Amino acid sequence: MILSPAPYIDHTLLRPEATSVQIRALCEEAVEHGFAAVCIPPVFVPLAADLLYGSEVALATVVGFPFGYCSPAVKAFEAAKAVAEGAREIDLVIHLGAALEGRLEAVEEEIRGVVRASSGAKVKVILECSALDDPLKEALTLRVVASGAAFVKTSTGFGAGGASVHDVRLLARAAQGRIGVKASGGIRDLAILKELVDAGATRIGTSSGARIMDEWHREGGK
Amino acid sequence: MILSPAPYIDHTLLRPEATSVQIRALCEEAVEHGFAAVCIPPVFVPLAADLLYGSEVALATVVGFPFGYCSPAVKAFEAAKAVAEGAREIDLVIHLGAALEGRLEAVEEEIRGVVRASSGAKVKVILECSALDDPLKEALTLRVVASGAAFVKTSTGFGAGGASVHDVRLLARAAQGRIGVKASGGIRDLAILKELVDAGATRIGTSSGARIMDEWHREGGK
Repeated sequence: MILSPAPYIDHTLLRPEATSVQIRALCEEAVEHGFAAVCIPPVFVPLAADLLYGSEVALATVVGFPFGYCSPAVKAFEAAKAVAEGAREIDLVIHLGAALEGRLEAVEEEIRGVVRASSGAKVKVILECSALDDPLKEALTLRVVASGAAFVKTSTGFGAGGASVHDVRLLARAAQGRIGVKASGGIRDLAILKELVDAGATRIGTSSGARIMDEWHREGGK
Repeated sequence: MILSPAPYIDHTLLRPEATSVQIRALCEEAVEHGFAAVCIPPVFVPLAADLLYGSEVALATVVGFPFGYCSPAVKAFEAAKAVAEGAREIDLVIHLGAALEGRLEAVEEEIRGVVRASSGAKVKVILECSALDDPLKEALTLRVVASGAAFVKTSTGFGAGGASVHDVRLLARAAQGRIGVKASGGIRDLAILKELVDAGATRIGTSSGARIMDEWHREGGK
């Protein structure tokens, strides 16, 4: 028996030109395959909430995405609004500039604000690992743990690099099982998904979920 | 006499990894050269407002940047907050998905909301021309004119393409002088700046302002 990758997958469509027709199709595929969540732009949360009502698929959206440099109050407002409209998970981009300047207290405080504003919805904190060195990735993961967020996440998928086995392993080691680890960016087939799960990823953000499920079925998955 | 390009230039730093040290340098350069504005991330507006106080350089920031798909209420909140903190110009990204679906009324309504929230600050509306066909660019420019915004702008600078002479000419023709036209994306030298101004651009967004001024001085500008 080969365990299904479906419960790991955040079925994702975050391109700026995404349309409601595409969001509709994405939600239908997520329900069909039993994915963990869909991850979609905030403006489509009301639509997706209607489409996913009664299903087990979580509705995730993004806050401060993808550049992470809007002000903390705007991020908190954006999160609160999304949750009020039906989002159950919030993928939040940190302010990378503050992290690079070593102002980690400010980064943690901002995450806390979004966690509070999210009223129990799970917050996944995106670090954009391609712009950070290893000690900073580790220090930030400890801040994410302390902030009350539910996941640390490797990348926006729109930066210079995507998820790597190295980064997932590093984040998972720092998180010590106290929060989840979401890998995202450039994950396009089942082999990579398995590698990243082996390295410690508990959630996989990808726009190739349907293709990965096809592969899994061909390999003998049920 | 060669007229200076300085009053056309929005001196721009919008990379996600921008730090406060870099924002400080940008503001100092803008004052030194007499640029029209600095264009910076929202989180740095309070810092830039302090630095630019008493100068003629306008403080511009971005809303819904760069993907444009946060909800209209979040865009209005982000604009109001930025203006309260000292921003005098707001570069707003439209919801591209709505535009591509032909929901131009929704696009216009969202712009109106940001214009209202901006309390007299000039709103520049970013279309991301590389994702649109010519009739849509023209129709959207008419909507921008109708919405009460002050400028239509070609690109975020982070999409598939930057400013082109073709697009600036098209937007300027549609705007008929009733609003300004800002060209941005990939403008790195004086020759391109001149071409775009000839085509109808009234403002140039670039991160190469200092270099362009050097060129201008070498050409004999005072």
